[in-house]
Amino acid sequence: MPARLADLAVRFGCELRGDPDALVECVASLQDAGPGSISFLANPRYRRHLARTRATAVVIDAEYAAECPGNVLVAKNPYATYARIAQVLYPASPVRGGRHPGAVVEPGAEVDPSAWIGAGAFVARGARVGRRVSIGPGSIVLEDVEIGDDSQLVSRVTLCAGVRIGERCILQPGCVIGADGFGHAPDVGGYVKVPQVGSVVVGNDVEVGSNSTIDRAAIGSTVVEDGVKIDNLVQVAHNVRIGAHTVIAACVGISGSTTIGKRCMLGGMVGIAGHLEICDDVALTGRTTVFKSIGKPGVYSSSLWADEARHFHRNALRFNKLEELARRVRRLEGASGAGSGEDEHD
Amino acid sequence: MPARLADLAVRFGCELRGDPDALVECVASLQDAGPGSISFLANPRYRRHLARTRATAVVIDAEYAAECPGNVLVAKNPYATYARIAQVLYPASPVRGGRHPGAVVEPGAEVDPSAWIGAGAFVARGARVGRRVSIGPGSIVLEDVEIGDDSQLVSRVTLCAGVRIGERCILQPGCVIGADGFGHAPDVGGYVKVPQVGSVVVGNDVEVGSNSTIDRAAIGSTVVEDGVKIDNLVQVAHNVRIGAHTVIAACVGISGSTTIGKRCMLGGMVGIAGHLEICDDVALTGRTTVFKSIGKPGVYSSSLWADEARHFHRNALRFNKLEELARRVRRLEGASGAGSGEDEHD
Amino acid sequence: MPARLADLAVRFGCELRGDPDALVECVASLQDAGPGSISFLANPRYRRHLARTRATAVVIDAEYAAECPGNVLVAKNPYATYARIAQVLYPASPVRGGRHPGAVVEPGAEVDPSAWIGAGAFVARGARVGRRVSIGPGSIVLEDVEIGDDSQLVSRVTLCAGVRIGERCILQPGCVIGADGFGHAPDVGGYVKVPQVGSVVVGNDVEVGSNSTIDRAAIGSTVVEDGVKIDNLVQVAHNVRIGAHTVIAACVGISGSTTIGKRCMLGGMVGIAGHLEICDDVALTGRTTVFKSIGKPGVYSSSLWADEARHFHRNALRFNKLEELARRVRRLEGASGAGSGEDEHD
Repeated sequence: MPARLADLAVRFGCELRGDPDALVECVASLQDAGPGSISFLANPRYRRHLARTRATAVVIDAEYAAECPGNVLVAKNPYATYARIAQVLYPASPVRGGRHPGAVVEPGAEVDPSAWIGAGAFVARGARVGRRVSIGPGSIVLEDVEIGDDSQLVSRVTLCAGVRIGERCILQPGCVIGADGFGHAPDVGGYVKVPQVGSVVVGNDVEVGSNSTIDRAAIGSTVVEDGVKIDNLVQVAHNVRIGAHTVIAACVGISGSTTIGKRCMLGGMVGIAGHLEICDDVALTGRTTVFKSIGKPGVYSSSLWADEARHFHRNALRFNKLEELARRVRRLEGASGAGSGEDEHD
Repeated sequence: MPARLADLAVRFGCELRGDPDALVECVASLQDAGPGSISFLANPRYRRHLARTRATAVVIDAEYAAECPGNVLVAKNPYATYARIAQVLYPASPVRGGRHPGAVVEPGAEVDPSAWIGAGAFVARGARVGRRVSIGPGSIVLEDVEIGDDSQLVSRVTLCAGVRIGERCILQPGCVIGADGFGHAPDVGGYVKVPQVGSVVVGNDVEVGSNSTIDRAAIGSTVVEDGVKIDNLVQVAHNVRIGAHTVIAACVGISGSTTIGKRCMLGGMVGIAGHLEICDDVALTGRTTVFKSIGKPGVYSSSLWADEARHFHRNALRFNKLEELARRVRRLEGASGAGSGEDEHD
Repeated sequence: MPARLADLAVRFGCELRGDPDALVECVASLQDAGPGSISFLANPRYRRHLARTRATAVVIDAEYAAECPGNVLVAKNPYATYARIAQVLYPASPVRGGRHPGAVVEPGAEVDPSAWIGAGAFVARGARVGRRVSIGPGSIVLEDVEIGDDSQLVSRVTLCAGVRIGERCILQPGCVIGADGFGHAPDVGGYVKVPQVGSVVVGNDVEVGSNSTIDRAAIGSTVVEDGVKIDNLVQVAHNVRIGAHTVIAACVGISGSTTIGKRCMLGGMVGIAGHLEICDDVALTGRTTVFKSIGKPGVYSSSLWADEARHFHRNALRFNKLEELARRVRRLEGASGAGSGEDEHD
C-alpha cells in the first residue's frame, strides 16, 4: 500500500525535507534500500550507511538529517515514527469471520461471528472469543477461556482453562498460558502436588513470544498488565505480577510470587528469584540475576563478560580465593599501620 | 466439594483448634481469604498477613498457631497438609473413556477403553495407552510409545517413537519427550549426524513442565526416575539420568550423559555440563553452573547477584585483572617479609 | 540391517583388525554392548570400559586399538565413522508420498507427490513442499513457505509465512521458525509494534532442536547458513545471521542483528547481545555472555563455576568490594614505594 511522503509527514507529525509527492511502498535497511523504499536511523551504529543509502526517504532525527542524500522525514522519535509508517505500508489483513472446516468448536463456546478459527484449532465449551479475534491453526483454547476483541493467536498457542486474555494481544506460536504452576510440597518420601487453582489474567496490548510460558496461579491470579511485551522462551511462574508497559527480552525466567513494576526493562536471560518485589522503572541488563528485592529505579547488572578462556579461567581461580586475598590485604595494612577505610567487622 | 474441619483434621492427622463443624470449600491466600476458605502459612515471609486473615481456617505450624484469629489446623508440615486438603476441595475430574471425533488413533494402537483421546490428538500404531490416561487436545503420541495408568498429557504434548511414560505422570502443554539428542560428529567440511537410536524412560509420578524437552538417548535410554518434578522450559539432554524425587526449577539445562542423584534440588536456570556425576542430596541455587562432578551432598552456588550497573561494572573490570591484583599482593608481602599462607605455586 | 565388518571397513576407509566376516546389527555403548553390536571410543573418559567390552566390534583410534579385546575398526575420526556406520545399521525409513486423511492442504499449495503430510498437519496456500519432504503430525506450514527436498518436520513444527527451508534439514518437534521478531519502539505511554516484514532463510543440512525459536527479520532476512546445528530451546532473534557449520548447544540466546561466523561452537546457555559480530572459528564455553564483538578466533569464557554456597557467597561479597580492594592495594604500594606495573589511570 504505497504512501505519499507529504501524507505521512502530516499524519505522523514529521517535518518533510524533500519531495512531497515521492511515493514509498516498502521498508528497507539503509544499506539495502532501493527506490520506493523508506528506511530509518535510530541506532547511531548504523549512521555509517546513511550517506550512501538509496532509500526514497529516511525517517531520522534532526541531528543527522543533513547527512542523508535523499528525502527525509524528521521525527523526534524516528523509530516509533518508522514503526507507525510501516504499519501503514503493511496493513494487517482484516480478520474474516468464520471457521475452517478442520476447526473444532465445542457446543457451549461463544465465538463472535467476526472471529476466525483456523484449521486444527480447538475451542472448548465455556470459552468466549471476542470480535475479530483470530485463532490460528493448531491453537488450543480450553474451557472458560476469555479472549478480548482483536486479539490474535498466531498459531499453535495453548490457553489453559479459565485464562483471560485482553484486547489487541498477540500470542506467538507455541506459547502456553495457564498451565499448572510448579507447586510441590516436600513430604516424607517425595512431594505432594499442590493444586494450582488460580488463573492467569493478561491485560490489553500484550505480546507473548514463541514458546514462552506463563503459569496459572496456585491461588488467585498470575497477572500481566496492559502493554507488557514478552519475547520468546520466557518463563513467568505462578502468582507473578508484571506491571504495565514492562518489556521482557528472550530467555528470561521470573520465579513464583515475584512482582515486577511498571515500565521495567528486562534484558535477555535475566533471572529473578521468587517472592521479590522489583519497583517501577528498573532496567536489568542481559543475564542479570536478582536474588533480593529492588526498591530503587535504576540500571542493575550482575553478569561478567566474555574473555579469552585461559585468561578468564585464571581470574576465576583467583575469585575462588578472593576472601583469602582480602584477608591478606588486611594483614598487610595492619603491618604497615595503614587504615583500610573499612569497618572493623569486614 | 466442601469439607468439615473435623473431618480434615482426622483425615490428615492435624490438631484442630476451633469449630469442628466449620465448613471450608475453597482455598485462598491469607490476605485475600474470605469466609468458607482455608489458607496456610508455610513461608514466614507471609506471617504478617496472619493476624488479619478472614480465612475460616488456616493450616499452620504449632509455633504460629496462636497468632491466627480463626480456626487452625495445626500440622507438622503445613504446606504438604494444605496440598492434600486442596486436593480434596478441588478433586480432579474423572477421566471419561473414549475419544473425541477429531482424534486420530491409528490401527495397531492399543488404547484402554477407560482412556480419553482429545480433539486433534494423534496416537500412532504400536502405542499402548493405559487405564484412565488422558491425552489432551493436540497431543502427538508416536509409534510404540507406552503410557502408564492414570497419566495425563494436558494438551499439545509430543511423545516421540518408543518413549515410555510411567503411571500418574503429568505432562504439561508443549513438552517434547524423545526427540533426537544433539549428536553431530565433526568431520572434514562439517558434521555427520549421529543416529539417536535410544529412547526415554520416565518413571511414575513424574511431572514435566510446559515446553520442556527431554531428548532420547544416542544409545540406551535417557532416564527420569520416579517422583521427579521438572518445571517449564527445562532441557534434559540425551543419556542423562535424573534420580528419584529430584526437583528441577524452570529454565535449567542438563547436558548429555550427566547423572543427577536422588533428592537433588536444582534452582532456576542451573546449567550442568555433560558427562558429570552429581551425587544424591545436592542443592544448586539459582543460576549455578556446574562444570565438574559433585561427590558431596550440600548446597552449591556460582551466580553473582544484581548490583547497580555502574558499581557492578567497575568491579567486573577489576575481576578481569584479578590475577594481576593477586600478584601485586604477593609482591607486597614479599617486600614486607610477611608470609602469605599460600602454597608457593600460587 | 546387519553389516559385515569387512564391508564397513572398505566403505568407510577403516583398517580392520579381526574377523572380516563378523556381522554387526546394532550399536551399543562399550559397557552395555553384547554380541552383534558395534561400539566406539571417542571420549577418553570412557576408555576404562574398553578392556571388558563384549562388543563384536569397536570403532577406535589407532592409539587405543590394542586395548580392545575384540574386533576393531581403526579410524582417524572414530566418532564420525561410528556415526556413518550407525546410519547404515539404522537407515531412515523412506518417505512414502501422500497425505494422512487428517491432514489439511489448502488449495494453492504445491506439494510434491513424493512428500508426506501427516495427521493434523496444515499446509497453507502458496506453500511449496519439495521431494521426499516429511511433514510430521501436527505441523503447521503457513502461506508461501518453501521446504527443500528431503527435509523433515518431525512433528508439531511451525513454519510461519514466507519462511524458506533448504534441503535435508531436520526440524525437531515444537520448533518455531519465522514468528515475529521482538520489535517494539518506545513511545509516550508505551510501545509501538514495529512490523516484522522480513523472513527467515535456512540453508541446507541444518538441524533445529525441539522448542527452539528463530524469528523473522524486521527487514530483510534472518539467515541460518548451510550445515548449522541448533539444539533445543535456543533463541535466534530477528536479523541474526549464523555462519555455515556453526553448532549451537541448548538454551543459547542470540540477540537481534548479531552475526555469528562460520564453524563457531556455542556451548549451552551462551548469551550474545545484539548488533555484534563474532568472527569465524570462535568457541564460547557454556554460559558465556558476550557483550562485545569478537574479532579473533579462539576460546572465550565468562562463567564462574559451582562452589560450596557458603564459600561462594563470601567470595561474592568480596567481589562486590573489589574496586575498593584494588584501591587499598594501590595505597599499600604507594606507602611501600613499590610500583604496581599498572598504568597510572588504573
